[in-house]
Amino acid sequence: MKIETKVAKFKEPLYLESGRLLESFELVYETYGELNEDKSNVIVICHALAGSHHAAGRYADEAKPGWWDKFIGDGKAVDTRKYFVICSNNIGSTFGSTNPLSIDPSTGKEYRLKFPVLTVSDIVKAQMKLYKSLGITKAKAVIGGSMGGMQALCYSIEQADFAEHVFAMATTAYTRPWAIAINKLAIESIRHDKAFKDGFYKKDDLVANGLPGLAIGRMAGLIAYLSPGLFNKKFGRDYSRTDGLYELFGRFEIERYLEYNAYNFPKVFDPLCYLYICKTMNIFDAGRNEDTLENSFKKVKCKLHLISFKDDMLFFPEEMEEIRDIMIKLGKEEQLTYKMIDSQSGHDSFLVEVEKFNDYVIDILENK
Amino acid sequence: MKIETKVAKFKEPLYLESGRLLESFELVYETYGELNEDKSNVIVICHALAGSHHAAGRYADEAKPGWWDKFIGDGKAVDTRKYFVICSNNIGSTFGSTNPLSIDPSTGKEYRLKFPVLTVSDIVKAQMKLYKSLGITKAKAVIGGSMGGMQALCYSIEQADFAEHVFAMATTAYTRPWAIAINKLAIESIRHDKAFKDGFYKKDDLVANGLPGLAIGRMAGLIAYLSPGLFNKKFGRDYSRTDGLYELFGRFEIERYLEYNAYNFPKVFDPLCYLYICKTMNIFDAGRNEDTLENSFKKVKCKLHLISFKDDMLFFPEEMEEIRDIMIKLGKEEQLTYKMIDSQSGHDSFLVEVEKFNDYVIDILENK
Repeated sequence: MKIETKVAKFKEPLYLESGRLLESFELVYETYGELNEDKSNVIVICHALAGSHHAAGRYADEAKPGWWDKFIGDGKAVDTRKYFVICSNNIGSTFGSTNPLSIDPSTGKEYRLKFPVLTVSDIVKAQMKLYKSLGITKAKAVIGGSMGGMQALCYSIEQADFAEHVFAMATTAYTRPWAIAINKLAIESIRHDKAFKDGFYKKDDLVANGLPGLAIGRMAGLIAYLSPGLFNKKFGRDYSRTDGLYELFGRFEIERYLEYNAYNFPKVFDPLCYLYICKTMNIFDAGRNEDTLENSFKKVKCKLHLISFKDDMLFFPEEMEEIRDIMIKLGKEEQLTYKMIDSQSGHDSFLVEVEKFNDYVIDILENK
Repeated sequence: MKIETKVAKFKEPLYLESGRLLESFELVYETYGELNEDKSNVIVICHALAGSHHAAGRYADEAKPGWWDKFIGDGKAVDTRKYFVICSNNIGSTFGSTNPLSIDPSTGKEYRLKFPVLTVSDIVKAQMKLYKSLGITKAKAVIGGSMGGMQALCYSIEQADFAEHVFAMATTAYTRPWAIAINKLAIESIRHDKAFKDGFYKKDDLVANGLPGLAIGRMAGLIAYLSPGLFNKKFGRDYSRTDGLYELFGRFEIERYLEYNAYNFPKVFDPLCYLYICKTMNIFDAGRNEDTLENSFKKVKCKLHLISFKDDMLFFPEEMEEIRDIMIKLGKEEQLTYKMIDSQSGHDSFLVEVEKFNDYVIDILENK
């Protein structure tokens, strides 16, 4: 599988839903496989909150491959021998695309808190400019989970001529207060962290300090992304052996797991980016620009494939079923498939239980 | 209804499950109603993590009555015209009973981090000393929800001759990693709060500072104690009107609600007490002292009444059903009732949806 990591620089302004604009912007993106002659083999992958453009394959110095490597690759469901796969880092995200720490061309300084609030529509709009620059006007499919699923839904409604198939997994048509509340833990935790300095931290200081605010915010996410059942199976009431104390006073395995993952997170993710992305997720509402969800989903021309996960504790299956019901009400049953996976890894099942929806995706892509 | 708030001082040591002891200790407690001549009309109420001895009635200066006032009072399910109701503040808690900020008699200084880790069994043992001092050897019933339900279960197993009926609501026989993870958010958030000063904060400074660590910990609790359905119904995607900004950038009602409740919490609750109570909850395991849960529940002599709440996101109905199944397996069906409430307020339903289990409790207490 051929992996290429590139940067696309756009000198034109990106007009944002807020009324503001980015005078210019950059997108870091990866591609896997080869674009065919008539450019008809494109599959777009959209990443989630903490994801990146590095969806598949493994760099020479990497211990782990890209975040959806089980799903994308030679001979895998998204088969890179057939398809040309593009995954770009969302604007606002921490992995190289234009974000709050980028230089504001109008001041020559980092945006920081002057960075505009972005919507999922803005993220998708920026991606559309990338495809245009590559001469791509159509995609075989757009696929995304969680916040990537919000992007996928946005493609189906707002870029209705772009994709033949849209797969939205573990997501929602509008962020409900439960998910907003979980993001709130991160927002409050970051903004009260002394090291955050109201957004004017020095990047080097962050790494030295460990940034507990972002770590605790991430910890809230880790809990919501998994599930009580998975925790029972994986950790139970086991004690962590590393501290060697009498077990009554000891640390539980679940605590060790959360600490390890949460406190490592600030090494790779920026807190201002995290705040902005939480806001983007919170304000996502596929119905906003059309007054109602029904009006929005009327615009769908693609085949829309919804995959929910039974034990998802962030975006519950009922949220996906609401979209299904709207599509049916609109008489768009033939454009729709829905599948609930009997998952055991919570929200993150879309990342880790790929084998449970692999064939379903293959059958659709191959028109079986 | 006659309300009395008292302090009981015990000069004798309380031997703790950890092997440590409290040389002396105090319990603040309230009673409602009148103790009858043969002391046969006692009902014990056990409070939850953030609860207090003030379960019912209203003090002259109070805006809101005690935390279970819907359930306890003249003519209510726990009828104070008939019963003498006792609710004591758990040791370790913030509302006046011996806790980490009490004076350690061996040093003349506050315990702070030298306070011993307490178990639910220790809390119950301290309460038993209170009843003894009042000449009470039997209770008509012990009733508690959440961590109060853990105490109730502990009474049924470890103080097996004490109560005729034990009602355990919205609780579990052992704290599972999901609840431990939610407590972990509070623990990490408190310990990283600069104002906490590793437990050596000055109490006055805390109030001035606002203690964001404890507030954020409380926020995690508030989310877990409610439910996605309740949030949808109560807040939806409404924006808070108070900030007057364009809604895209505004604050959601759920965010305002969480902020308001979380940031007021440190005014009434101490962070060290919170840490100790989280630990007590985390290490609760009704099976610990008998190797297995079955061995523990073999000891139950009372009638055990389990009430679970369908949308409880902290202690799931399956956890209560595990206890039911053990009791049945042990051939103790006649000592058992189980009811799942079709609740809509999550874990907190035991506090707010009292009307859904009122009659059930009355029927049992009145032997109907």
